[in-house]
Amino acid sequence: MKKAYLAALFLIATAIVIGPARHGFTEEASGTTLPRYTDDGKLVRPNNYRGWIYISSGLGMNYGPAAHDAPAFTNVFVAPPAYKHYLGTGQWPDKTMFVLEVYSASSHGSIVKQGQFQDKLEAVEAEVKDESRFPEKWAYFGFGLDGKTASKFPQDRCWSCHDQNAAVENSFVQFYPTLLQIARAKKTLKPSVHLVASDPSGQ
Amino acid sequence: MKKAYLAALFLIATAIVIGPARHGFTEEASGTTLPRYTDDGKLVRPNNYRGWIYISSGLGMNYGPAAHDAPAFTNVFVAPPAYKHYLGTGQWPDKTMFVLEVYSASSHGSIVKQGQFQDKLEAVEAEVKDESRFPEKWAYFGFGLDGKTASKFPQDRCWSCHDQNAAVENSFVQFYPTLLQIARAKKTLKPSVHLVASDPSGQ
Repeated sequence: MKKAYLAALFLIATAIVIGPARHGFTEEASGTTLPRYTDDGKLVRPNNYRGWIYISSGLGMNYGPAAHDAPAFTNVFVAPPAYKHYLGTGQWPDKTMFVLEVYSASSHGSIVKQGQFQDKLEAVEAEVKDESRFPEKWAYFGFGLDGKTASKFPQDRCWSCHDQNAAVENSFVQFYPTLLQIARAKKTLKPSVHLVASDPSGQ
Repeated sequence: MKKAYLAALFLIATAIVIGPARHGFTEEASGTTLPRYTDDGKLVRPNNYRGWIYISSGLGMNYGPAAHDAPAFTNVFVAPPAYKHYLGTGQWPDKTMFVLEVYSASSHGSIVKQGQFQDKLEAVEAEVKDESRFPEKWAYFGFGLDGKTASKFPQDRCWSCHDQNAAVENSFVQFYPTLLQIARAKKTLKPSVHLVASDPSGQ
């Protein structure tokens, strides 16, 4: 009886301690890692995506007619639980959230003689997989520079291009070297997608 | 007596559980976050710095005479415990580790019409603050593409320039917008350092 009592106590102690501790840094650094919405269906800007997993950056990437804006850096992050799932499967779980940051590029200042560095935050956008909420599974949101919530973009703004051209589901894994390796190993690349020029498969 | 016994059991249970759990995702995703050395003083390449905190990226940044190499992307990461300390203080604790990745830049492939994305990993370097090991406090290491360990670079290779020109201790916070905000709030910028052109302080 005493033994059972002690075992129960041990389990309670374990639960008390593991409860808040198991996600330790992740929760603390990233706030929620799942999409949250307002009552009227807007996505709430995630508070600390800078504590999430960094995926890759581009500079001045453009998929349409030549842009006349100054080229900007784009940084992509994904919430840690979705990343862990992807590492094991090469697929994105439901409730995956990506954040894309846009930073102006500067080439003047400090000791820089050549090249460009990130200067000012210009916009934050999000890509969300939420199968129960969106019939098209993935949705896109723009918070601008400092919006706290964002309405879903119309389907032809981002979704159509991601749906047609992204290498893994709606994510442009062809531009994310570390994730591309995983997708290749797990054989989750869409067969129809044109990958990058240096891709050894020749696609 | 029974109460004391139960209290002790609770503490043991707590210790057993907290021990491995408290760093949860951090440890799992990043392996060790502190510098480790071989017996002959080489730095061991950190296994999973891609689970660390992303700081910023540049493209083709160069501080000396014009470079003739193709411009490459550089991504900077810092170990999570050092980042948390920096957020609170604007200073880097002893045993801070940064990793700098070099990625080739590509502008051809997939649906890209303009701009550049990261293509192939070319090199991994590290910056370490280790006051008991290095009289100059900070040291620099290059692992090349796939080295498992690295000897310290000579002092005139990286250290001198970082020491003279970096905005916070030896770290180039002037190129890291999110960290620059913290340094400004905590007043830890070196007064002598020339910041970037858009810096509102006019330095």
